[in-house]
Amino acid sequence: MAVYLDNNATTALDEKVLDAMLPYMGQVTGNPSSVHRFGRLQKDAIEQARELVAQLAGARAEQVVFTSGGTESNNLLLNGFKQASRETCIAVSAVEHMSLLEPAQHLQAGADIIPVDEKGCVTLPALEQAMTEHTSLLSVMSANNETGVIQDLAPLISFAAERDCFFHTDASQTAGKIALNFVDSGVHAMTISAHKLYGPVGVGALILDKQLPITKRQFGGSQEKNLRAGTENVPAIVGFGRAAGLAMENLEAGASHVRVLRNALEKGLKEFNTISIFAEGVERLPNTVQFGIAGFDGETMLMQLDRKAIAVSSGSACTSGKTEPSHVLKAMKIADVLANSAIRVSFGKNNTMSDVEKLLSALRDIIEINQHSSVMMAATV
Amino acid sequence: MAVYLDNNATTALDEKVLDAMLPYMGQVTGNPSSVHRFGRLQKDAIEQARELVAQLAGARAEQVVFTSGGTESNNLLLNGFKQASRETCIAVSAVEHMSLLEPAQHLQAGADIIPVDEKGCVTLPALEQAMTEHTSLLSVMSANNETGVIQDLAPLISFAAERDCFFHTDASQTAGKIALNFVDSGVHAMTISAHKLYGPVGVGALILDKQLPITKRQFGGSQEKNLRAGTENVPAIVGFGRAAGLAMENLEAGASHVRVLRNALEKGLKEFNTISIFAEGVERLPNTVQFGIAGFDGETMLMQLDRKAIAVSSGSACTSGKTEPSHVLKAMKIADVLANSAIRVSFGKNNTMSDVEKLLSALRDIIEINQHSSVMMAATV
Repeated sequence: MAVYLDNNATTALDEKVLDAMLPYMGQVTGNPSSVHRFGRLQKDAIEQARELVAQLAGARAEQVVFTSGGTESNNLLLNGFKQASRETCIAVSAVEHMSLLEPAQHLQAGADIIPVDEKGCVTLPALEQAMTEHTSLLSVMSANNETGVIQDLAPLISFAAERDCFFHTDASQTAGKIALNFVDSGVHAMTISAHKLYGPVGVGALILDKQLPITKRQFGGSQEKNLRAGTENVPAIVGFGRAAGLAMENLEAGASHVRVLRNALEKGLKEFNTISIFAEGVERLPNTVQFGIAGFDGETMLMQLDRKAIAVSSGSACTSGKTEPSHVLKAMKIADVLANSAIRVSFGKNNTMSDVEKLLSALRDIIEINQHSSVMMAATV
Repeated sequence: MAVYLDNNATTALDEKVLDAMLPYMGQVTGNPSSVHRFGRLQKDAIEQARELVAQLAGARAEQVVFTSGGTESNNLLLNGFKQASRETCIAVSAVEHMSLLEPAQHLQAGADIIPVDEKGCVTLPALEQAMTEHTSLLSVMSANNETGVIQDLAPLISFAAERDCFFHTDASQTAGKIALNFVDSGVHAMTISAHKLYGPVGVGALILDKQLPITKRQFGGSQEKNLRAGTENVPAIVGFGRAAGLAMENLEAGASHVRVLRNALEKGLKEFNTISIFAEGVERLPNTVQFGIAGFDGETMLMQLDRKAIAVSSGSACTSGKTEPSHVLKAMKIADVLANSAIRVSFGKNNTMSDVEKLLSALRDIIEINQHSSVMMAATV
């Protein structure tokens, strides 16, 4: 049985979520925009799910806009804001997900980049320096997908609020792992993705405070409060709602479960004197650890682990295939050679202590074989 | 048991399609962008589905770009083309779906509108008149969602080709109902939606000839040949593939089945001397009939039929809620009062002759009661 340790890339659909979706994937159908009973049934299902997703985010139902996923939410936020409030400057952190960084780079005037410190944290002084008097939107993620670093957003949000600057946070990795409170936090926009929290792929949300000016990007219907045209993906939205409900129920127990596994793994990793854990010592997601292995290439290690039926990531899944070091580790000023050796392990609710042991044992084998062949190579020179 | 006669709005998911999707909605997961075995499994599933969707469209697999649906495909096409080839003019027919017309209206320079004749057809003279020497993209749908009118595209495509003008067709309503041949037809882009052909909602395709210049709109990853960033909706894509396969197998039998029902309904409708069928006498989709009922309001009729557990549309589902007459019927120069009385019936594979009888009987009841009360009203005045 293969071991899946890549839950920050995507999670397995929860059986209870599938059960909630199936009634909307059967013989009874209807377009939620249709006025008849079939349409109304679908519309009601969307609104029930909206309520659950709002609760997970600590938001009000009317603040939830369903999209096709986190990438669309981030693109909609940046482009929609830029469109609605021209001549404005946007600043984003250097460690954002590519679905935020790339659209930011493609904005007409681009975006200012807020650097992070060597632990991957956005500090207040860095924010102060990156902001100009024209900055009208800041975007800093709640937690990083690679390192798991949780940003201390409160002082950043206060600072932005004093300058009448809107604040967005990509909470794709935090939703379902730690508590969110959209309304009380003072952020104006938040991105969530369902498939990161045992919900279906193909659906996400952009949570919006009505103060934030935004225009739609996808035209052709007035769905989602006229912010996202297109027939609503009802089964996925229903699944998202159910996944949000389950995430709320299991928030603490779920976090404890993965924290125990992650801590056990880190304890084991420390026995290798060639391994360094990134962003150690700062608050991180309970399920995530990213580490470098001196003298190894991350992609090669990933493939070697894959041959041993263990699935990890060598960086963000969305940038796999690139050979450059991760932009996150680069921003933390980690040397290229160490950054290129990065392996990310992200636990999920289906993992067990046996998975930790299998990974540690596999790493030991690969590293020892390699060291042995290095010695052999050295001996033959 | 309620009668669903709104299959142009959306269709019920085929059981076989659901069966194909379920293995991708269970405990085994993986992000298709991930390099490990879990990711590769998902990637392979996407490529198998791409092959099937390509076959349905008469295209090559590498020409298929998966999107979140028809609306996204149409938006991507128009905006992506405009972005890639600035300073160009676009012309679209007056009867396009709103997911094409609205983004066309929002393009920087707007779009030229090609009028239709009173039967809803785009004629060559109309096209010639609407095109300027600068027109570089034409978009004419294959068949209309409201009237069912099938456009005779061949002469329009030839005309465009002679002028080096690219041609897009929205085939959302034709795919699965009549045969498509992307490559041989000479079109450069085609939109398809899965949930119109018993596939899942939340997935569609834009079929693209590589000659057509286009840039992506959603950034943050190189998915879908770098034309659509975001984690792929694998279960939906797999379902789309299966639905495409089934549609090809059942193309003729499926068309015959709905044609028999539609013809029986039309025969019955002709017994009401107050009913006129729109676009009668021109080639239409085998499953669709739209008609006006003198002296009735379409929305009210829809609600009265709904109370009798029969679901129809009073126009395009996506524009329901608006009280203006359908833009399609307006373009056909049908008087507002008759256009406002429009009812669209669209049959699907799950319908039977009993559904036709129920609808005819319900219409008879409603019209008779109304005529009776009108008489009563007149008598009491």
